Amino acid sequence: MRLLRTVTFLFCMLCFVLVKAQTDEEVIKTIYKTSLTNGQSYEWLRYLSNQIGGRLSGSINAQKAVEWTKEELDKLGLDKVWLQPVMVPKWIRGIKEHAYIESAAGKTTTVNICALGGSIATPALGIKANVVEVHSFEALEALGKENIEGKIVFFNRPMQADLIITYEAYGGCVNQRYSGAVEAAKYGAIGVIVRSMNLRLDDYPHTGSMTYNNLPVEQRIPSAAISTNDAELLSTMLKLDKGTQLYFKQSCKQLKDVQSYNVIGEITGSEYPNEYILVGGHLDSWDLGDGSHDDGAGVVQSMDVLRLLKKSGIKPKRNIRVVLFMNEENGLRGATKYAQEAKQKGENHIFALESDAGGFTPRGFAFDCNDVSFNQVLSWKHLFKPYLIHYFEKAGSGADVGPLKTSTNVLAGLRPDSQRYFDHHHASNDTFDAVNKRELELGAATMTALVYLFDKYGVNPISNENELKK
Amino acid sequence: MRLLRTVTFLFCMLCFVLVKAQTDEEVIKTIYKTSLTNGQSYEWLRYLSNQIGGRLSGSINAQKAVEWTKEELDKLGLDKVWLQPVMVPKWIRGIKEHAYIESAAGKTTTVNICALGGSIATPALGIKANVVEVHSFEALEALGKENIEGKIVFFNRPMQADLIITYEAYGGCVNQRYSGAVEAAKYGAIGVIVRSMNLRLDDYPHTGSMTYNNLPVEQRIPSAAISTNDAELLSTMLKLDKGTQLYFKQSCKQLKDVQSYNVIGEITGSEYPNEYILVGGHLDSWDLGDGSHDDGAGVVQSMDVLRLLKKSGIKPKRNIRVVLFMNEENGLRGATKYAQEAKQKGENHIFALESDAGGFTPRGFAFDCNDVSFNQVLSWKHLFKPYLIHYFEKAGSGADVGPLKTSTNVLAGLRPDSQRYFDHHHASNDTFDAVNKRELELGAATMTALVYLFDKYGVNPISNENELKK
Repeated sequence: MRLLRTVTFLFCMLCFVLVKAQTDEEVIKTIYKTSLTNGQSYEWLRYLSNQIGGRLSGSINAQKAVEWTKEELDKLGLDKVWLQPVMVPKWIRGIKEHAYIESAAGKTTTVNICALGGSIATPALGIKANVVEVHSFEALEALGKENIEGKIVFFNRPMQADLIITYEAYGGCVNQRYSGAVEAAKYGAIGVIVRSMNLRLDDYPHTGSMTYNNLPVEQRIPSAAISTNDAELLSTMLKLDKGTQLYFKQSCKQLKDVQSYNVIGEITGSEYPNEYILVGGHLDSWDLGDGSHDDGAGVVQSMDVLRLLKKSGIKPKRNIRVVLFMNEENGLRGATKYAQEAKQKGENHIFALESDAGGFTPRGFAFDCNDVSFNQVLSWKHLFKPYLIHYFEKAGSGADVGPLKTSTNVLAGLRPDSQRYFDHHHASNDTFDAVNKRELELGAATMTALVYLFDKYGVNPISNENELKK
Repeated sequence: MRLLRTVTFLFCMLCFVLVKAQTDEEVIKTIYKTSLTNGQSYEWLRYLSNQIGGRLSGSINAQKAVEWTKEELDKLGLDKVWLQPVMVPKWIRGIKEHAYIESAAGKTTTVNICALGGSIATPALGIKANVVEVHSFEALEALGKENIEGKIVFFNRPMQADLIITYEAYGGCVNQRYSGAVEAAKYGAIGVIVRSMNLRLDDYPHTGSMTYNNLPVEQRIPSAAISTNDAELLSTMLKLDKGTQLYFKQSCKQLKDVQSYNVIGEITGSEYPNEYILVGGHLDSWDLGDGSHDDGAGVVQSMDVLRLLKKSGIKPKRNIRVVLFMNEENGLRGATKYAQEAKQKGENHIFALESDAGGFTPRGFAFDCNDVSFNQVLSWKHLFKPYLIHYFEKAGSGADVGPLKTSTNVLAGLRPDSQRYFDHHHASNDTFDAVNKRELELGAATMTALVYLFDKYGVNPISNENELKK
């Protein structure tokens, strides 16, 4: 018996040592290796992009995506998988838009446009009018009603090429797209054309959401994006020929809200029943491409985080949730609903990470948190160096996780290389072939490694409170 | 007069202050802005790739590339532009290769192959034989002559997917391609097929150089690369059907050496007449694609370094040379010639930088230098942080600058993101459309910034000598 006890003791010690021997470096190495040699994200994206395709909120494809991702999560052997109901807006593009530039002499040149999401249609025969080009709302105001009434306003401020992080260049331009119609309508414009949010010169028009705010229905004007090549052409023609007119026709429409869902999966934690770590992306996409980068990549990476944790033999202490949000693009209804319900239930989301910036090579994370927590994540930065992950900065996290913000938790956004993102964003070339398998898998691994660290070490609410008292 | 003198004095002081006010941060910001808003690299690459195309050493296209790049350098107003003669090998592919797998039952499946650079042709009717699959030279040796004689050896070791830096995965596999034929010939093989050096599964065969060393002509065997998809297919068929044979036919040929040139441009330095800073890439490329990433990108980036220095108002203290090396791919004759002549003339190359790792987003540099110099470059690292340049490591620099190595100088290689590089490397899809304008321009700016710093601060030979005495 003594021998048996001794052997048992030694065996237990050995197991303990073996378990202890797994340093953070080793666990993270396993995570990356598993993603790069046995990842699922790319095959999932192939299906989501090529078999389902573009999936605007309220569409049949969006519903297909809900059902298929739930089925795939069901296969992973998670502790819970469910759908969270949410009503979403349903906007449809109608038949393909048509537009041309007409010179004073009557020569026409077809240009590439697409209706902005949320825009009204033009009259059935389209509209044709003279064009006023502006680069800002201030310039619009300076021109005033006498120069704008009855015309089409052309917002042509390009994205700033010398900003290194292209999301910043987007941030400096997107008000033209989002609020251009409201601003132009003030001065009696009959339509709005916006230069596509694209740093490259090409022929793809890029859609995206726009608003009418509280503008009465009868004052609303149709709004479309024009490709960057055609924006340059229109601008040149306007300089050469003051009589240049633009014609455009679109038949898009806002329908009644419809039922949709967030898709949620969970691994239940072993030690902290009310602490939640969330990883997610948004399941809806614009309708022009198949939404591979925006945000199919974030969806499949987030799904693979839970799978990679399991495959890497990690047993979480906290509840790990994947949330595939519905309706990020034109309403944020899914994110709003999720945050409301989490608050009602008192679920403490200590960390929420979104991937919604493309499926390119990951460079790091943007963190939205207090300084104590930021110092905590900085102390982990060296663990990511072997994977060329170097960008740890305080900045905005992600639209879908934003509503979960508290004074003590950590929100984060994966930050991939941004140089090519706006070549594809919201356009018909946001397609599966533009995603590289390894880049996607490196992103999934990088997210998993950070989730692993937050699960292991948590956030320190006491330190946070002390910090907040300063 | 007193007033005039005072005004002149104040004006001079103002100029002095204005010049002094240009910190390194400001100069580097100007360099990046100039490249991103007024760079020439992308338009140069468009011409080199689309109007000239693939330019293997000794080809008409290689000669066209020599003449055209010299003309473009002539336009830049450099102090000197010249051609450095060098004899280069001339290998031609001949008619398109053909290959199929034939099952024991006689069913044939066409597969995608390409001759390796330097290989001999098959007999005119091709060769057909049983196939032996191996993953290493050790496995080949273990099989021995009795299992290999009269057969085709199929080297199928894949690139290691869990290595983050893909150049390392290439390094772990490329001996199959380079020395596979020599090794297989030892055991009486009649041909060699090598899995393409590609991390992705696709249909493109990837060429590249191979050697026969001193193998007598009559013992040489033909060698070709097979696409990764077809490598997987062949491997599967070999497992299912031991009678599987492979047929392949190629008509490539080594001709006599021909005259070619390195293309060189120089800005003469104002203070150090015998100190040289070199920036370069290689002008030759493989013939299958148009060599946009390998190494059209490095060529146009290097050309733009000198242009960006001038555009940014930098007047170098040391001689800055751009060298477009001929024949990196299958001989390194241009690099060898350049280094020989530099040595003969006693030109002190204190720093030489090569871009030959693709035109993707730059991540940093690999430095080949002593520790004193490495500490010097590390002290500059913070200047690159705003541009997300973070990779400063001691490692191999570049094949063309390698021969310039001394105990005190610094060699470096630009290190772009490597994830997509081997999707295109040496294959017919190494084409202009795979290069992103901003990524290319960021690379040119990153190189220019480092050249600016080396020109301004030099290297410290005294410190280096002290260090070397340790």
